[in-house]
Amino acid sequence: MQPIKVYADRRSQPSRAVIIFCRVNQIDFEEITVDLFKSQHLSAEFRKINPMGQVPAIVDGRFKLFESHAILRYLASVFPGVADHWYPADLFTRAKIDSILDWHHSNLRRGAATLVMHTALAPFLGLTTSPDAVKQAGKLLMQSLGRIESVWLKGDAKFLLGSPQPSIADLSLVCEIMQLEILGNDVRDRFLGAHEKILIWMDNVKKATSPHFEEAHELLFQVKASMLSNAAAANQTSEPSTKLKIASKL
Amino acid sequence: MQPIKVYADRRSQPSRAVIIFCRVNQIDFEEITVDLFKSQHLSAEFRKINPMGQVPAIVDGRFKLFESHAILRYLASVFPGVADHWYPADLFTRAKIDSILDWHHSNLRRGAATLVMHTALAPFLGLTTSPDAVKQAGKLLMQSLGRIESVWLKGDAKFLLGSPQPSIADLSLVCEIMQLEILGNDVRDRFLGAHEKILIWMDNVKKATSPHFEEAHELLFQVKASMLSNAAAANQTSEPSTKLKIASKL
Ligand SMILES: N[C@@H](CCC(=O)N[C@@H](CS)C(=O)NCC(=O)O)C(=O)O
Ligand SMILES: N[C@@H](CCC(=O)N[C@@H](CS)C(=O)NCC(=O)O)C(=O)O
Repeated sequence: MQPIKVYADRRSQPSRAVIIFCRVNQIDFEEITVDLFKSQHLSAEFRKINPMGQVPAIVDGRFKLFESHAILRYLASVFPGVADHWYPADLFTRAKIDSILDWHHSNLRRGAATLVMHTALAPFLGLTTSPDAVKQAGKLLMQSLGRIESVWLKGDAKFLLGSPQPSIADLSLVCEIMQLEILGNDVRDRFLGAHEKILIWMDNVKKATSPHFEEAHELLFQVKASMLSNAAAANQTSEPSTKLKIASKL
Repeated sequence: MQPIKVYADRRSQPSRAVIIFCRVNQIDFEEITVDLFKSQHLSAEFRKINPMGQVPAIVDGRFKLFESHAILRYLASVFPGVADHWYPADLFTRAKIDSILDWHHSNLRRGAATLVMHTALAPFLGLTTSPDAVKQAGKLLMQSLGRIESVWLKGDAKFLLGSPQPSIADLSLVCEIMQLEILGNDVRDRFLGAHEKILIWMDNVKKATSPHFEEAHELLFQVKASMLSNAAAANQTSEPSTKLKIASKL
C-alpha cells in the first residue's frame, strides 16, 4: 500500500493532531510541509489539494480530504490497526466524541485562536488590536476550559468522557491548548493555572502519545523561543517584524 | 419504543435542522420548546439536559446529546429507517460530508451568525455594534457562499458533493442560510443574489424535505415580520425593544 500524504505545518495545532495520530497508530505517511510562513497554503498547487487553502489536508490514493476532525475520523475508520478507543464503534460513545469535536470549533478553538492572533501576534504585525476582541476571546477561552473540566473531566478520569484511554477528541483539544505556549508562560499560566484538571489531562494525553507528542511540538517551542526574543527586541525598536507576518495565519 | 425528546427553539437554525430531519425520516419524537426569548436555555432544569445551555439537544432513553451535527449523525446511525444518502455508510462519502460539517462552524456559521447579531439585532438591543465586526462577518459569509458554490456545488448537481439526494450537510447549511431572512429582503438578496447556484440548491433542499421544511420555518418568518415592523417603529422612537433582547441568542 502507498503511504498516505499528510500536508501540514507543525506550527498549526490541527496539523499536529493529525501527525501525532498517524505516528501513534503506525499509519504509514509522507509528511509534506506546507510552510504558512512562505504562504505555500495559498499556492495554486496546494489549492488542488485543499481548495480552502488550509492545513492539514491528506491524500490517500485518489482521495483528498481536509478538516482535521474529518481526517481523524476517516483514518480511525479505514485503518484496521487503529485501536477502537480512538473513535469507538459503539454509537453512543462515538456520538459523545462527535459532540465534543463539534463543540470545539465555536468554543475552545475560537477562543484560543482569536486570543493568540490578537495578543501574541498583533503587536508584531502592526495590526490594530481591538481590546474588545481580546477580552471576548479571553472570556470564551476561560469559559471553554472551565466547561471541559466540569462536563467532560468529571471525577478522576484520565481522559474526556471518563475514558481510561484517549480518543481523537482528546488529541484535538489538547493540541489546541498547547498553542497557548506562544503567548509566553505568564499568559499561559493565567489561563491554565486555575485549571488543574486540564493540566493533569494534558499530561495524560502527552504520556499516552509519547514520544510523538513531544516530537510534533518541537517546532512550536522553537517559534515560542523566537517570538519571546523578538518581543524583547521589539521593546527596543518599534519596527514590526515582517518575519512574523505569517504567524497571523496560525 | 419511547419517542426521543428534542429540545429546540424553532428560531434557532440548528434546532430546525434536527426537527426537519426527524420529520422527513419519520422518527417518532416529542418536541420540547426551550424558549430562548424566556431564557429557558439557562434554567437549571435545561442545564441537566445540556450543561452548555444551548439548543438543540436530544434525550433518547437515558442517553443525552447536544450539538446538532453530532445529533444528526447519531439519528442517521441508530434509526434503521433513515435512508443511506443522509449519512452514507461508504467511508469516503461519509468523510466528505464530515469535512463539510466541520468546515461549517468556523466559516458559514461564524459569518452568518455574527452578521445577524451585529446588524439585525444590535440596533434593537442598544448594543454597540462594531463596524469592523460587521465588515468581517459579511466578508466571511460572502466568501463562504462562494466556496460552497465552487467546491461543493460544481456542475449541475442537485445537492452538495454532486449527490442526487440530500445529506445531513445539505440540511445543516441550508438552515443556516435561511437565518438571513431576518436581515430583511434587501440584505438577504445582497448576499444571495450573486449566488444563483446557492439559490437553486436551497430550493432543492426545500423541495426534498417539503412540507416539513416550510413548516419548521414558519416561526422564523413570523420573527422576520415582527422585526421588520419593530424596525419601522424604531425609526420613530429611539427606545430599544426589550422583547428583542433575547434575539441576540439566536
Ligand atoms: N477547522 C480546520 C482549521 C484549519 C485551519 O484553520 N488551519 C490554519 C492553520 S491552524 C491555516 O491553514 N490557516 C491558513 C489560512 O487560513 O489562510 C481544521 O481543524 O482542520
Ligand atoms: N454548534 C451548535 C450551536 C448551538 C447554538 O449556538 N445554539 C444557539 C441557538 S442557534 C443557542 O442555544 N444559543 C443560546 C446561548 O448560546 O446562550 C449546534 O450546532 O448545535
